[in-house]
Amino acid sequence: MRKGLRLGVDLGGTLVKMALVDERGRILERVQVETVKNPRTLVKTLRLAAEKWLAFPILGTGIGVAGDVNPERGVVRFSPNLGWKNVKLADYFRRMKFPLPIRVDNDATVAAWGAYHVELAGHSNNLVVLTLGTGVGGGLVFDGRLYRGATGTAGEVGHIIVEAGGESCVCGSRGCLEAYLGGAALVRSARAAYKLKGRTVDGLDPISLEKRARAGDPVAKAVWQRASRVLGIALANLVNLLNPDTVLLTGGVSRGAPLFLPNALKIMNQRAFKTSARAVRVVVSQRPSDLGVAGAALLVE
Amino acid sequence: MRKGLRLGVDLGGTLVKMALVDERGRILERVQVETVKNPRTLVKTLRLAAEKWLAFPILGTGIGVAGDVNPERGVVRFSPNLGWKNVKLADYFRRMKFPLPIRVDNDATVAAWGAYHVELAGHSNNLVVLTLGTGVGGGLVFDGRLYRGATGTAGEVGHIIVEAGGESCVCGSRGCLEAYLGGAALVRSARAAYKLKGRTVDGLDPISLEKRARAGDPVAKAVWQRASRVLGIALANLVNLLNPDTVLLTGGVSRGAPLFLPNALKIMNQRAFKTSARAVRVVVSQRPSDLGVAGAALLVE
Repeated sequence: MRKGLRLGVDLGGTLVKMALVDERGRILERVQVETVKNPRTLVKTLRLAAEKWLAFPILGTGIGVAGDVNPERGVVRFSPNLGWKNVKLADYFRRMKFPLPIRVDNDATVAAWGAYHVELAGHSNNLVVLTLGTGVGGGLVFDGRLYRGATGTAGEVGHIIVEAGGESCVCGSRGCLEAYLGGAALVRSARAAYKLKGRTVDGLDPISLEKRARAGDPVAKAVWQRASRVLGIALANLVNLLNPDTVLLTGGVSRGAPLFLPNALKIMNQRAFKTSARAVRVVVSQRPSDLGVAGAALLVE
Repeated sequence: MRKGLRLGVDLGGTLVKMALVDERGRILERVQVETVKNPRTLVKTLRLAAEKWLAFPILGTGIGVAGDVNPERGVVRFSPNLGWKNVKLADYFRRMKFPLPIRVDNDATVAAWGAYHVELAGHSNNLVVLTLGTGVGGGLVFDGRLYRGATGTAGEVGHIIVEAGGESCVCGSRGCLEAYLGGAALVRSARAAYKLKGRTVDGLDPISLEKRARAGDPVAKAVWQRASRVLGIALANLVNLLNPDTVLLTGGVSRGAPLFLPNALKIMNQRAFKTSARAVRVVVSQRPSDLGVAGAALLVE
């Protein structure tokens, strides 16, 4: 990675984080603005916020976006969160005279790149990152290089099917990891279980579900238990297929790891090949909020 | 790949193939000997068979072995087929004065490397190979480089779990692809189904099962149908996770592809992300018997 500053942008459904980042992924300055769905307005707002930094020599601009991204062309093919379809995002940044080159990639791919450089620097060569939020995303670093696949779509860890006839998933398939461990799925599943017992519980979210499980609520405990089993199977699949040295969990739901990770690891160890299972560390990110902007910035190599 | 000759060895449970191979994976000469389980005797036999070639300048020796291999140290950690445990195979070849360097790797990994160079030359950058034999193995080529993972164990495509509570697998887990599509599993499953109908059928193997299905035998058809569904799910997982441009099927059972591949592709397309599903070609190897030796030879870069 060349010495120098980059601009990193983490473009989420509600907030955009932008930061000035050095070659080691250290964040020197940062700003945060609310997401606007009109891409022109959004990029203009970001340009104003970045104004003060543009006197520095900056090596380029990297952007992570939730959705299906074509990294070669800098186009967001589809982003349900932003309501975007075929948005030429790199072009908007270019026209607003952001530092060149402009790189755009999927947010989870970018988070994996951030984790590789910032959180695991020198301690991982083959890395799988799971972003546990409302949905479940993922990013892959193989032999120290970001892996994007044929169309930039690789790493959809949330859509590993672990139960062919299992729960319906928003992707249209069934039995995906996301249909059990995604924040939305956890809440949906808890709500259904409470309803069966004739209870309506308001304001359920993954954090309150976590508190309930810790307090011994049997419904909440069962929901996390089921998610842990499915995660265990998904981890066994990842370990058998990719033999990573590290799996890193990040995103809001990863804070519930003490509730679900021990059982998931037990199942992974029962199910996966010994040599590969012994070689992997499964860890929870200690710096979840920095991975996106840092990784985005480091897309500029 | 440097210009020049390499020696390639494909070490199977019953036969060893050895060939003189050029930098494009073309086989110039070849021999075949029966497998002996004593590694010293085996390597000595191979040395005698290779004698006539050793007057040529040879850039090195590559060996593919079925089992868990440590490619860095040239050690076969475990090979059920050969009854080997921690066999320092590279050392045996070194002591017998085979051309240096000596490279050892897993047979399916090696087959993937062979397919990449020989069968798909220039047409694939991100490749998943499935070796469909008695068991199901696999190899991965990412961004034009062989991917081995942390301990050389990556690519165990046969042990993707597609049905958490499904059929028992020889690996100790349940619901693995191999437990449905492996030659041994196909036969086991057909035998059980015939038995339920009060029939005993002798001499069942994947080839006869194929013939029976083609002739309209409902038991044989059902066995292939179930295998095709499971393969479809496994392909969806591979496509969502790895976004390959090519999946190549090889090995004896791949000859039955007309029976199981159309339905598997239908399921893959229903289950996988559109962008990734559209980007992948699933093909059956046209040169299955050459991939092992050619890939082994090309381990010497």
